[in-house]
Amino acid sequence: MNVLWVLAHPDPRSLTASLAADGRRMLTELGHEVRVRDLHAMRWNPVVDAADFDHDPARRLFVGSAAKDAVRRGTLAPEIRAEQEHLRWADTVVLHFPLWWHGMPAILKGWVDRVFVNGFAFGVTDPETGASLRYGDGGLAGRRALVVTGVGARGAAFGPRGIHGDLDEVLFPVQHGLFWYTGMAPLRPFVVPAADRTTAGDYAEIRDRLRTRLAALPTEEPVPFRRQDGGDYDDDLVLRPGVAPGRTGIPAHLR
Amino acid sequence: MNVLWVLAHPDPRSLTASLAADGRRMLTELGHEVRVRDLHAMRWNPVVDAADFDHDPARRLFVGSAAKDAVRRGTLAPEIRAEQEHLRWADTVVLHFPLWWHGMPAILKGWVDRVFVNGFAFGVTDPETGASLRYGDGGLAGRRALVVTGVGARGAAFGPRGIHGDLDEVLFPVQHGLFWYTGMAPLRPFVVPAADRTTAGDYAEIRDRLRTRLAALPTEEPVPFRRQDGGDYDDDLVLRPGVAPGRTGIPAHLR
Repeated sequence: MNVLWVLAHPDPRSLTASLAADGRRMLTELGHEVRVRDLHAMRWNPVVDAADFDHDPARRLFVGSAAKDAVRRGTLAPEIRAEQEHLRWADTVVLHFPLWWHGMPAILKGWVDRVFVNGFAFGVTDPETGASLRYGDGGLAGRRALVVTGVGARGAAFGPRGIHGDLDEVLFPVQHGLFWYTGMAPLRPFVVPAADRTTAGDYAEIRDRLRTRLAALPTEEPVPFRRQDGGDYDDDLVLRPGVAPGRTGIPAHLR
Repeated sequence: MNVLWVLAHPDPRSLTASLAADGRRMLTELGHEVRVRDLHAMRWNPVVDAADFDHDPARRLFVGSAAKDAVRRGTLAPEIRAEQEHLRWADTVVLHFPLWWHGMPAILKGWVDRVFVNGFAFGVTDPETGASLRYGDGGLAGRRALVVTGVGARGAAFGPRGIHGDLDEVLFPVQHGLFWYTGMAPLRPFVVPAADRTTAGDYAEIRDRLRTRLAALPTEEPVPFRRQDGGDYDDDLVLRPGVAPGRTGIPAHLR
């Protein structure tokens, strides 16, 4: 496999960075190619602005259409095109970050904001039908994607009735709204609970648990979200009445 | 009221910026004080690093404890302390942004990451019981908070059975995980659907709809999330069996 491992932690001595280094080593030993994007080390700029698109500052900026134009004209900023090349190269994408405020740290959120633009990751149409390819299809179709994250809370508080919300639902924006939307098949997230209270003695167990998941990366069954064009959604992109009848909310989007 | 209006859009001619300007004007006319934090205009740096905390770079950085130490010692970076002063001053906080990848643009996510730190917005204990104050109580208790956002999709696709997920659930990380967690009472989000396809002719309707919401800011009933210390959660922060029996997921956290 070609694995793109995107890492977002400010300290190279962190648990996050240590696990990433170990994961890279293990995947390499298994014969995979690994590229690491260490966003802090790269001093990645996470802020979208007109310069991303070589957009005339005298004209109002509509981000979506400016991005699509820039993709077509090949005028996206060079550092964005470089990241897109890494995504094209990859067949597996790992986003590795501490969960801050129930989402990605800003440096990673802005890697997504700037790189996964209209006309590249989405806003791509089927050449035959003209339909917009999304949710199970899209600009990044054929890839698998994995969240590796550490959370402050202990397990039960992120469970189905835990106060922080079920972690699978809290991560729905990433798993479904980002990965699946752009065509990538999301794997179950790898989670380190109580990450800021782990000790040196806990490390081997966490590392081994991650190694087990990484060994299964090529074969693991992805989360079974419904395909946009698989017949479950109507023309307004609402679940048809006969699909998961009477159910609402995030779990209804699982097959 | 003292309203802190935090704005995240790269173009001052955007729908987002126009609505913010109108909202500010209207609230001022109603006799409220309004401070606007226009994050792009401020060139806000959204990336957490050791310099935020005056942290010795020779020592490993644990973000949570480094932040708490810096709050106690008064050594948080001056631009962070300035934003915290605005939050202390406010009794109402508006976060105004286009919804990107089902969340805040990175510049705003990083305003939250850097400003809402341990020892300020959370990690605050009850001086009598020593309990950690969260979810309905916390460092920002007594304030109200409103999301104003524009989304690309039309209404039904963000409804209870829409493919993008129920917008109330997609915004749970902000409404519950950020606002409620730090003690702020979340109001229902104000949403502009199909925001990038609005025309000049749509503007007056959207503006007026927002004005109606803003006029009701001081009196509107907040979203009725359950308090952490209100008796509904057990010591592991899991809903007690008799509360919303048999229900799981995000709606179970509503009274």
